[in-house]
Amino acid sequence: MKIIRFGDYGQEKPGVQLPDGTRIDVSHVVKDYDEAFFASNGLAELSEWVATHAANAPRINNTIRLGAPLARPSKMVCIGLNYTDHAHEAGLKIPKEPILFFKSTTAIVGPNDDMVIPKNSKKTDWEVELGIVIGKRTSYVTKDEAFDYIAGYVLHNDYSEREFQAERGGQWVKGKSCDTFAPLGPFIATKDEIEDVANLSMWLKVNGEFKQQGNTGNMIFDVPTVVSYISQFMTLLPGDVISTGTPAGVGLGFDPPQYLQPGDVVELGIDGLGSSRQEAIAY
Amino acid sequence: MKIIRFGDYGQEKPGVQLPDGTRIDVSHVVKDYDEAFFASNGLAELSEWVATHAANAPRINNTIRLGAPLARPSKMVCIGLNYTDHAHEAGLKIPKEPILFFKSTTAIVGPNDDMVIPKNSKKTDWEVELGIVIGKRTSYVTKDEAFDYIAGYVLHNDYSEREFQAERGGQWVKGKSCDTFAPLGPFIATKDEIEDVANLSMWLKVNGEFKQQGNTGNMIFDVPTVVSYISQFMTLLPGDVISTGTPAGVGLGFDPPQYLQPGDVVELGIDGLGSSRQEAIAY
Repeated sequence: MKIIRFGDYGQEKPGVQLPDGTRIDVSHVVKDYDEAFFASNGLAELSEWVATHAANAPRINNTIRLGAPLARPSKMVCIGLNYTDHAHEAGLKIPKEPILFFKSTTAIVGPNDDMVIPKNSKKTDWEVELGIVIGKRTSYVTKDEAFDYIAGYVLHNDYSEREFQAERGGQWVKGKSCDTFAPLGPFIATKDEIEDVANLSMWLKVNGEFKQQGNTGNMIFDVPTVVSYISQFMTLLPGDVISTGTPAGVGLGFDPPQYLQPGDVVELGIDGLGSSRQEAIAY
Repeated sequence: MKIIRFGDYGQEKPGVQLPDGTRIDVSHVVKDYDEAFFASNGLAELSEWVATHAANAPRINNTIRLGAPLARPSKMVCIGLNYTDHAHEAGLKIPKEPILFFKSTTAIVGPNDDMVIPKNSKKTDWEVELGIVIGKRTSYVTKDEAFDYIAGYVLHNDYSEREFQAERGGQWVKGKSCDTFAPLGPFIATKDEIEDVANLSMWLKVNGEFKQQGNTGNMIFDVPTVVSYISQFMTLLPGDVISTGTPAGVGLGFDPPQYLQPGDVVELGIDGLGSSRQEAIAY
């Protein structure tokens, strides 16, 4: 199943995207895709409801804005330098253990919303990433059991201000948390939709030109490793998002570096998770 | 006004601690001290209600557990190395700009709850800190206007696992986010209660022996600077907590270092913000 949220920013309603692309409104069945929804077996119940009632459910006009496909989670945890080629282009060593950082959840927006280049930014950059959505509360989960705690997957552009991140005195969160820096979606694909999460092509274009072309199979620390690892250091809650790192081809990696300017258009996609599109605008 | 929350973990109700120390239940007036409460002028309305009705409000038995004095915020932002003496003891340079890191909000517990030493921890450490509670949504706020966006202040023990934080490959959040690592309270003192937030004594004892004795006046970046600075990089929401750093005297700073063992008792306090007490227990 593919779950979506639609409507104005901050007022999104839950919906479902059917296999034929039709979008239905399920706001009379589900309050929102939030912690309580994931924690209470909401996905399974919704899936049953859809199987029986989708044909008669209200349709969503395809021109309506898509929001992030889940309500604001308790946290967004990201993995740094999780693809060998990206570590090389960043001039940094291959990590021995996953590098963890957070993004402020206020950065979350819909998949096709404008991306606002922050005030005083000179180095706003892109990063196509596979996002994991946690389905059940967990801590100290083993790698073998990690998949049991995953609800699904989502496309994420981990926008990053490189000067804020690395040249302003400490801890990457500073360059990862600006408003609009976390477009999520178009949808969350439930776990059963993705046959092999370790073999998904991913790509990102700027103004129509390919910048990133990778595959989730090239992660240094794979999906179950990452979930298990994070849970050794903090409790993961239903609806939490883990972003698993980006392959080579970010702006920082070019010589000279390429950073986003107002008017630039960024498009990205991952097999099975759809595509998104952001236009960069000035603050 | 001093606001508290009481009851079992995860089921706390809102209350108020009156000037004479009496605690009253206000759960019939206020749903919870959450983002919506702070955003909707809840503190001012509650204060009016208390002025008229406190005498007849239901009392809380003083043996009832205190929870963290606010509902889970959207984020907890912390300032690293914000006291010169602590930067020296950590062997790190005085920062030119505030160092920012996050704590997972799942770490938040009540002021007197047990602190669980995480699995595989050898270096669990303490940090008495002044916490700021944000009252109104803001981004790009100036230093001069920063106080307008503060709801109040809260005592925080920023527990830190030093090996997780600094020796496990990247980004401090890894050592700051374990369950029970963020005892908050006993109460939030509203801004008007604290005459000069830049002159508050703070202290922390382990097993009855003073380890930290400082004053908020020794912050490198003061309260309005910190609020303004963070808001240049992310939007602050009502109820968000900012922890402003710790003075010298953490376990890491001793020679040899002193870390917490099961059975150790940590007590801490800040002028006007009360005191808290945690017993360290094994996972």
